[in-house]
Amino acid sequence: MSVQPVIDHLLARHAAVLDRLYAFLRLPSVSTDPAYAQGMQDTRRFLLAWLNEIGLSDVKLLDGGGQPAVYGAWLDAPGAPTIIIYGHYDVQPPDPLALWKTPPFEPTTRDGRLYARGASDVKGSTTIAIETVAAFLAVNGRCPVNIKLFIEGEEETGSPSLHAIIERYGPLLQADAMISADGGRASPTVPTINVGARGLTKLELVVRTAEKELHSGRYGGSVRNALHELAAIIATLHDADGAIAIPALMDAVRPLSERDRHDTAALPFDEAAFVADIGGIAAGEPGYSIRERLTLRPAIDVNGMWGGYTGSGSKTVIPDEARAKITIRLAPGQDPNQAAQALQAHILAAARPGVAVSFEAIGGGSPASTLAADHPLVQAATRVLRTSSGQEPVHVRLGATVPITAIFKETLGLDTLMFGFNLPDEDVHAPNEFFHLASIPLGLQAWPMLLEELGRFPATAFCAGQSRFDRASKAT
Amino acid sequence: MSVQPVIDHLLARHAAVLDRLYAFLRLPSVSTDPAYAQGMQDTRRFLLAWLNEIGLSDVKLLDGGGQPAVYGAWLDAPGAPTIIIYGHYDVQPPDPLALWKTPPFEPTTRDGRLYARGASDVKGSTTIAIETVAAFLAVNGRCPVNIKLFIEGEEETGSPSLHAIIERYGPLLQADAMISADGGRASPTVPTINVGARGLTKLELVVRTAEKELHSGRYGGSVRNALHELAAIIATLHDADGAIAIPALMDAVRPLSERDRHDTAALPFDEAAFVADIGGIAAGEPGYSIRERLTLRPAIDVNGMWGGYTGSGSKTVIPDEARAKITIRLAPGQDPNQAAQALQAHILAAARPGVAVSFEAIGGGSPASTLAADHPLVQAATRVLRTSSGQEPVHVRLGATVPITAIFKETLGLDTLMFGFNLPDEDVHAPNEFFHLASIPLGLQAWPMLLEELGRFPATAFCAGQSRFDRASKAT
Repeated sequence: MSVQPVIDHLLARHAAVLDRLYAFLRLPSVSTDPAYAQGMQDTRRFLLAWLNEIGLSDVKLLDGGGQPAVYGAWLDAPGAPTIIIYGHYDVQPPDPLALWKTPPFEPTTRDGRLYARGASDVKGSTTIAIETVAAFLAVNGRCPVNIKLFIEGEEETGSPSLHAIIERYGPLLQADAMISADGGRASPTVPTINVGARGLTKLELVVRTAEKELHSGRYGGSVRNALHELAAIIATLHDADGAIAIPALMDAVRPLSERDRHDTAALPFDEAAFVADIGGIAAGEPGYSIRERLTLRPAIDVNGMWGGYTGSGSKTVIPDEARAKITIRLAPGQDPNQAAQALQAHILAAARPGVAVSFEAIGGGSPASTLAADHPLVQAATRVLRTSSGQEPVHVRLGATVPITAIFKETLGLDTLMFGFNLPDEDVHAPNEFFHLASIPLGLQAWPMLLEELGRFPATAFCAGQSRFDRASKAT
Repeated sequence: MSVQPVIDHLLARHAAVLDRLYAFLRLPSVSTDPAYAQGMQDTRRFLLAWLNEIGLSDVKLLDGGGQPAVYGAWLDAPGAPTIIIYGHYDVQPPDPLALWKTPPFEPTTRDGRLYARGASDVKGSTTIAIETVAAFLAVNGRCPVNIKLFIEGEEETGSPSLHAIIERYGPLLQADAMISADGGRASPTVPTINVGARGLTKLELVVRTAEKELHSGRYGGSVRNALHELAAIIATLHDADGAIAIPALMDAVRPLSERDRHDTAALPFDEAAFVADIGGIAAGEPGYSIRERLTLRPAIDVNGMWGGYTGSGSKTVIPDEARAKITIRLAPGQDPNQAAQALQAHILAAARPGVAVSFEAIGGGSPASTLAADHPLVQAATRVLRTSSGQEPVHVRLGATVPITAIFKETLGLDTLMFGFNLPDEDVHAPNEFFHLASIPLGLQAWPMLLEELGRFPATAFCAGQSRFDRASKAT
């Protein structure tokens, strides 16, 4: 069965797809603000009706105690892989309203762009995904893979009840892999496949220099000050360039491969604009491009640091204790525990004699994630993008771990392919968020091809990791 | 007229003086806690009755909107100097109560010590001062100097309305010098005269590295982090020993004189115990003893430092701004503005390219204070201590400026001699505060001698500085 009729059907329905997206965008589904509770409820009703209408089964809300997720399945492809399609229906608050050129919940088209809160993040790509499943069922009466649509309602508030939802509906969410409509393209001109993310580990550093806070008049100049000692330690973590100055930590990092270098260079990236956009100061490990530093090299950042008197006015104290919250973004090859231990050993060696150093809240992180080049998700995406763009897709990595994908990996063992069609310039989380209209037909062609390609693999090819739940309800 | 009959009178009245002190100590005059309002009021009534009873005139409360001060004068010595005698009737809260061996407001004598809240700080020395004036009037019918007794009620809460009291009663408080019953002896075996205090200046350092807080996954490893930059700057303020590493600041410090070295060495001081008492770590400028560092050398301390996320848990941000509150304790010879400017110039030079450094809340401090060796207060105290101890008094300095004396100097131009008889080991502000009973007869001998010695100087010899008020009400 060719996928072309499905694509033709979708492109013929382009205006109807846009109408549906407009209706989706008119619903003010701001998850963080109770004033939008009605908008959230209306959006769930809209989605339930839509998923029922296109022929999914078991359409329902998955309630974890917060904003429920919307679920619907099509599981009539025995032997084919089962794919969770992830999207989210909640959006960021539209504030500051005064900066919007047209109202955030009145979708408006200007200059090839569809302006509305949630257009890019992520109702546009979620609509493409749902319409793709609808088209397969409408044209072929079946999908190439088993489908579990999972449309979350709390992505913009940090998914506070996602763990509870997975705990409660774990068996229902068994699958072989996940495709996310969130997490988009890295470039409008170069086809990209996201093959991984940096890992994360952390610790809180506590420096103590006395048994109590001291009066700076009575002790100043004669004893150590915890803030001076903390500063002296933090100043040793990086060299003047901003590169990590802890050999035992850097030695564990996998050197860049030729492919890494090639892929990073292949992605158009304006380093000067990247830094200028945030009014920042470029810094970091010499010998690497900014994108290499961000995605293939580790980073240590002090996220918070404090001690002594921080209120208004002044207080002449010598602080006895100072603290720093430190995170390490882990590159491929690094073990979170080894990295945290190398950091601790370095700090202990850097502390001056007598300074008491201790560590709290150590670890709890995860290593960098990587989809192997021969992973079915990567193979399938490669074929799709090669065909649709005529170019060889570039493998890209993220500097940050995406919490959703990390949670699904940890709990259900699922690898995720990000296949959203949003682009980096679309002002997500800001006023005048938009979605490039040209992305819609691109997505309506690519998504059917992707499901078709995934359907060529047996379920066993995905080697999904250990799930915390039994696989009873998984389509087999 | 010899002073000996006055001293004899006081020593003969030793038991009565102790009774009065016991009564004073039984009054729970905790200024910071509204639950003790009655105790504060009772104490004022007690003092008003006492000052009237001994024959002072114009006895009254001086109200600045907070806890009033108690005032009384004897101004019948034309041509003689006018001396403000300073004490305070308020005490620290007694908490934690459970740690007191005997109740804090039930004075108890054990092992030569008088235990009670306020015994050392400063009802003991205040009682000695009042009894001295009383004895002069009882025995001689006059004092060697004009007296203005000023017993403050807010010393333990930072004197919040002292400025208002001075503003309202400025003409009444004109004088030639001040003797403080607060601020005691530095040693039980060596007679000391406090001849100065370090000065103070301050600034708040603001470091900025971007226009907004950044996500450490998206930017970590590629841009400067405000906390790293602040730490790098703070780490350059001192060398590894803890000595100030800013030549332009240190060059302005007056080198120690032979007398400085001699006086500091003459005072028994257990450096190891000083550091061990606070569980601290000795550090600072090589080539100087701890007491020299504390009193004759400057100190830079970061009193507070903060930036980024300091709440519970973690937040993966790269802070765009970080701040440090910095104070400089100034040694003799340093100009507060020059020191603050040298610090700023050093910081600007230490900041890495692109890092935005600015300063807020600069200055507002004062230079180190020094009573010249030939100042009448010093000459008088020297003669008294030489006679009473048989030893040459040692000049000592304080590491910290005493706010009260600084305020009286700024507003009324008065120099202050600290002549309290408390000792450093008396657990002030802590449970089981006590006053060495042996200090009472010592004080009852020394205070009359001091007033007698001061009476030998003409008022003009004190060269009191510029007062903000006219001198109309000063005795002439």
